[in-house]
Amino acid sequence: MTRVFNFGAGPAMLPIDVMEKAQAEFLDYKNMGASVIEISHRSKEFDEIINRTDAMLSELANIPSNYKILYVHGGAQMQFSAIPLNIINRNPARKASFILTGTWAVKASKEASRYGIALDIASSGDSNFNYIPDFDSLTLDPESSYVHIVSNNTLYGTRWNSFPNTGEIPLIADMTSEFMSRKIDISQFGIIFAGLQKNLGPAGLAVVIIREDLLEYALPETPGLLNYKTYAEQHSLANTNNTFAIYMMSLVMEWLADNGGVEKMEEKNEAKAKLIYDYIDSTDFYFGTAKPAHRSIMNVTFNLASEDLLDNFLEQAETNSLYALKGHRAVGGARASIYNAMPMAGCEALVNFMQGFEEKNG
Amino acid sequence: MTRVFNFGAGPAMLPIDVMEKAQAEFLDYKNMGASVIEISHRSKEFDEIINRTDAMLSELANIPSNYKILYVHGGAQMQFSAIPLNIINRNPARKASFILTGTWAVKASKEASRYGIALDIASSGDSNFNYIPDFDSLTLDPESSYVHIVSNNTLYGTRWNSFPNTGEIPLIADMTSEFMSRKIDISQFGIIFAGLQKNLGPAGLAVVIIREDLLEYALPETPGLLNYKTYAEQHSLANTNNTFAIYMMSLVMEWLADNGGVEKMEEKNEAKAKLIYDYIDSTDFYFGTAKPAHRSIMNVTFNLASEDLLDNFLEQAETNSLYALKGHRAVGGARASIYNAMPMAGCEALVNFMQGFEEKNG
Repeated sequence: MTRVFNFGAGPAMLPIDVMEKAQAEFLDYKNMGASVIEISHRSKEFDEIINRTDAMLSELANIPSNYKILYVHGGAQMQFSAIPLNIINRNPARKASFILTGTWAVKASKEASRYGIALDIASSGDSNFNYIPDFDSLTLDPESSYVHIVSNNTLYGTRWNSFPNTGEIPLIADMTSEFMSRKIDISQFGIIFAGLQKNLGPAGLAVVIIREDLLEYALPETPGLLNYKTYAEQHSLANTNNTFAIYMMSLVMEWLADNGGVEKMEEKNEAKAKLIYDYIDSTDFYFGTAKPAHRSIMNVTFNLASEDLLDNFLEQAETNSLYALKGHRAVGGARASIYNAMPMAGCEALVNFMQGFEEKNG
Repeated sequence: MTRVFNFGAGPAMLPIDVMEKAQAEFLDYKNMGASVIEISHRSKEFDEIINRTDAMLSELANIPSNYKILYVHGGAQMQFSAIPLNIINRNPARKASFILTGTWAVKASKEASRYGIALDIASSGDSNFNYIPDFDSLTLDPESSYVHIVSNNTLYGTRWNSFPNTGEIPLIADMTSEFMSRKIDISQFGIIFAGLQKNLGPAGLAVVIIREDLLEYALPETPGLLNYKTYAEQHSLANTNNTFAIYMMSLVMEWLADNGGVEKMEEKNEAKAKLIYDYIDSTDFYFGTAKPAHRSIMNVTFNLASEDLLDNFLEQAETNSLYALKGHRAVGGARASIYNAMPMAGCEALVNFMQGFEEKNG
């Protein structure tokens, strides 16, 4: 069996150690004679899994004690509804402010407008979201119940290098494509949320880190299983949760701890991204599509100066075990998603391939 | 490795053939060099999986062409909110009628009352839900947008043997703990839904079979990812779905087809349940807790005449590889959940154990 280097944006590759462990115990979890996916979410064995996931995540992400960890249904996109349902009533004006840095921020804003007034206070849509707007030049409506940002923009390859100071207004960040890939000061945020399928585990679940005082504002029409307070009170087990995803996340957290934690991971991620960006910047054959100052270290978006070579590039990459490099249709070109699980060797293989392709076609 | 006979109510045991196949290809799906959980929900390989699941489910369940299959986030309980959000506005009176046959029906009714008027038109709560109310003696409010029933009651071990005729008013059935275990005439229903974690796959997802004309009534406050029309229009891929669960369901559907389909499965399930019920009825040492006329063939609820022996019974069962026989706290006693994946050998082992326990303690 040859494993490819999988540059897919998500569901993304997971660490091989995690995958091998999950495979080895897939039929028989801890000598129970049953799989972890075949046991009750209320069993003592699953209880141990979810408690361990909490404990490891708390330690690795340095989560303050006045925050709750929730494992919520529906991935990140379901939170585009859940967040306004839970928080937009913090101020009775029912306003929420959005900074539009890509498709997901736009969708979140649109969804919030079902439940109140969505204020799009800035946007980089004028140049296809290839930069992050300057926050300090903005005026924030003081009646905003929250400010919503997308910290890393998977499609466009941009990220917030530092986070805006929104004062008393809670800052909410969709960190789906970068959570646990860089050090974050959680206390800067009211809520952080992330779908699992990039850096945390398989698809179908999201993790929400919420400051406790924000659990009190749910609108009466909030569906029971979108109410964050229900999750907080029942340890995310008000109904049968996605036990496989939580189990896989527990393994990913262990792997992260065994590999030096978030700090070490961030160093590695910066080195991985630098390798690719440096190569792109060293040649006219390729170019990066995001503004250098706002480049993501998770999603490297680039294109070929001769775009007619792109299909050929992507095809040859695949025959070289470099999988899923096609960019999102919103940007075109190529994209290397290099989440935590992508080893440096994968980035080296990519750069070697890019060099070889340039030599043949340049 | 010894696999136990797992009588847990769910997440429940899955067919060993399915588990072994999933394990074997866990690191390398179809020679892609990546796991099925590591590939895009928009890849051609995943597209093939979801199309195959649709096709097999359609054939096995004999789904008429005017119904849509949806794979929806949040399990069955999320549908307690999604159904009224999508359907209660079918009649502007915004009423929905519920027949209370257990905890899940009660919860569904309560949740619907957020969005309209929930009419509890009958209940077996007067004797701890150990029977199914007689539908023919009821009067149905003609303004009801739908009638909601729970076809099999996991906690209480009862089921609807036949389904009520609700005329023009759509009948909606929560079939979580029995879907695909017995022949059903889908055309009797407006919606059938089921969480996967009993007979269909792992936890965290539900399947919804909906008559197309019911896709048109969603309330404006319906969250985007609870709107059934969005799922129908985007083949359940408006966002990243729980790809692992859909993949596992595809394997379960293949297994079902390879084992004679629903008809054959129903025969086996009836024989399995009969074996246990016949034994219980043959002795005074044990007794069934559900009324014989309404007994489930999926969840066999029983108790010991001398209830002080129960803990001992459950403990000894576990040392005999008969796992998770404890009844739900709402009923007490014991419960054998014998879904499709439970082989006859498991039921025989249980009855042998029960006989032995009676001989020693009777």
